[in-house]
Amino acid sequence: MSPYADRSAVTVLGLGPMGRSLAGAFLAGGLPTTVWNRTPGRDRELVERGAIGARTAAEAVEASRLTVVCVVNYDASDAILRQPAVTDALNGRTVVNLTADTPDRARDTAVWAAEHGIRYLDGAIMTPTTTIGTPHAVFIHSGPKEPYEEHRSTLDALGGTQTYLGEEIGRAAAYDIALLDIFWTAMAGYAHALSVARAEGVTARELAPFAKGIGAILPPIFEGSAAELDSGAFSGEGNPLTSAVSSMAHVVQVSEAHGIDAGVMRAAEGLARRAIGLGHGTDGFIRIAEVLGRR
Amino acid sequence: MSPYADRSAVTVLGLGPMGRSLAGAFLAGGLPTTVWNRTPGRDRELVERGAIGARTAAEAVEASRLTVVCVVNYDASDAILRQPAVTDALNGRTVVNLTADTPDRARDTAVWAAEHGIRYLDGAIMTPTTTIGTPHAVFIHSGPKEPYEEHRSTLDALGGTQTYLGEEIGRAAAYDIALLDIFWTAMAGYAHALSVARAEGVTARELAPFAKGIGAILPPIFEGSAAELDSGAFSGEGNPLTSAVSSMAHVVQVSEAHGIDAGVMRAAEGLARRAIGLGHGTDGFIRIAEVLGRR
Ligand SMILES: NC(=O)c1ccc[n+]([C@@H]2O[C@H](COP(=O)([O-])OP(=O)(O)OC[C@H]3O[C@@H](n4cnc5c(N)ncnc54)[C@H](OP(=O)(O)O)[C@@H]3O)[C@@H](O)[C@H]2O)c1
Ligand SMILES: NC(=O)c1ccc[n+]([C@@H]2O[C@H](COP(=O)([O-])OP(=O)(O)OC[C@H]3O[C@@H](n4cnc5c(N)ncnc54)[C@H](OP(=O)(O)O)[C@@H]3O)[C@@H](O)[C@H]2O)c1
Repeated sequence: MSPYADRSAVTVLGLGPMGRSLAGAFLAGGLPTTVWNRTPGRDRELVERGAIGARTAAEAVEASRLTVVCVVNYDASDAILRQPAVTDALNGRTVVNLTADTPDRARDTAVWAAEHGIRYLDGAIMTPTTTIGTPHAVFIHSGPKEPYEEHRSTLDALGGTQTYLGEEIGRAAAYDIALLDIFWTAMAGYAHALSVARAEGVTARELAPFAKGIGAILPPIFEGSAAELDSGAFSGEGNPLTSAVSSMAHVVQVSEAHGIDAGVMRAAEGLARRAIGLGHGTDGFIRIAEVLGRR
Repeated sequence: MSPYADRSAVTVLGLGPMGRSLAGAFLAGGLPTTVWNRTPGRDRELVERGAIGARTAAEAVEASRLTVVCVVNYDASDAILRQPAVTDALNGRTVVNLTADTPDRARDTAVWAAEHGIRYLDGAIMTPTTTIGTPHAVFIHSGPKEPYEEHRSTLDALGGTQTYLGEEIGRAAAYDIALLDIFWTAMAGYAHALSVARAEGVTARELAPFAKGIGAILPPIFEGSAAELDSGAFSGEGNPLTSAVSSMAHVVQVSEAHGIDAGVMRAAEGLARRAIGLGHGTDGFIRIAEVLGRR
């Protein structure tokens, strides 16, 4: 057994912006931390701070009972973990894969891990690199409970909220996908809005305080809409779909009058019109979620 | 002159959910309030609370020096205001049109108003009906300063923050369009996310606390991105476009694997890929706003 294979030692594979933040938080937590990245040289600052820079992924994995992987996607994590030397080194050890991908990739990896005696948990990070190691970080995890419990205190060094979503290995990725859907769609709306505003002579800095106000009203609306969807009672009383679609059409019109692609809003308006066409015009906007799910 | 034509009397045309909330706030502020709606009967509760229910729009307008209009769009407000009897009655009076529409419709209305000796301001309401009369309401206004100053104290009865954006009549609508763009795009993303989550066995109520967390990180990201766009320096250091596009592709993949239309995210992903194709892959996401604006 390697001298570093103590209970709290940890290996980080993948030193992109997020992998570096994770490794930095483990180091800050005083944990013996071994790091590796496909492209060499990314570990310099971490090594200066006390990390052990492994020459190969297999060597990195051997150094700790827990390996945290954080690369661009599961194609990349497969390219690392499914090399025979790495797979062998992982036998009897635990992998927490914080790489974002689909629930099915996590399920597929669970099968591979079981075949090779590897304890495997999937996780997702819901907040930017700057939150890692602070109370603002948000992590979700799913997979077998026992390795999660065993390594929980190590993961706590990453800061913030760690939520265990249950044994079903795909669950963290399912939440992640849904939350990324919200985030990137909202960001696309914001980028588009800034572009339209600029065409109207309004700078981003002028719009930003009001945009922040829109951001601030979303959480309570998200909560109320979720309750509506689960109950199946869609109240459009304050703001029916017919009213929403009128606003959406205005956005498309102004955008296209300025020669700005309105494809995102056109697609969103199409969903709203489809729900109205199905007879839900007096319902609230979240009826769309139910219509989207219909076969 | 009608006995109600005192300085603080106010007329509300349009008694949809928002018009009723506005009239209710004026009544709660103790202002003599006259109301009218195309379809009769919508004024009942307001009349019980002390409002004067006018039989025609012209009669309603005559009752006050200030008329607030809030109907579905400018086609509807034109249908009301451009009737000869109403236009005549508005001569020398002020209209604040809180109906949402495009900047060009406001500009067109300003021309019409000037031709008929009507003082006209355009405005927009950025918050739901439930906020009206509370500190959470957000109103923006643009147009000639003098009538705005004159009626400012009346408008204050609507509560919240009233921001005057300047003399250019289209400015309130330009902000409104940009903010509605953000709001409805984000809502479309949320509806889609709830649908995908449900297909993965995650209820809306289970996802909602995390969705609220995503909502909470948006305001600071909006602020930072706005500064990047105005400065033209796009830092993708923490999260480059290439990484974003990988997440977006996962959302499309999971959605479509469940037979759920992913048109909104497909369009958003297309924008990101276009920016990457133009050589901006290492930039941050908001580079998209600049690419969208290019001819
Ligand atoms: N950045 C954030 O704010 C954030 C927030 C939440 C979640 N995440 C998630 O965290 C994960 C990592 O993100 P990131 O920000 O660090 O940057 P990233 O660009 O998504 O990933 C970069 C990392 O992936 C590695 N990589 C790519 N292809 C590879 C391959 N074929 N084989 C081996 N390694 C490969 C890179 O190695 P090389 O250096 O050799 O190219 C680098 O270590 C992603 O799944 C992302 O969605 C990021
Ligand atoms: N509700 C909100 O939370 C909210 C928030 C911010 C801004 N707004 C904006 O406020 C405005 C009003 O919204 P709303 O929520 O009250 O509901 P709405 O459904 O947008 O508008 C309903 C009102 O429009 C009238 N109307 C429609 N077509 C008409 C026509 N051809 N002639 C005369 N009147 C006509 C309706 O009269 P009838 O009763 O006769 O049909 C009713 O008074 C909209 O521009 C909306 O975008 C609403």
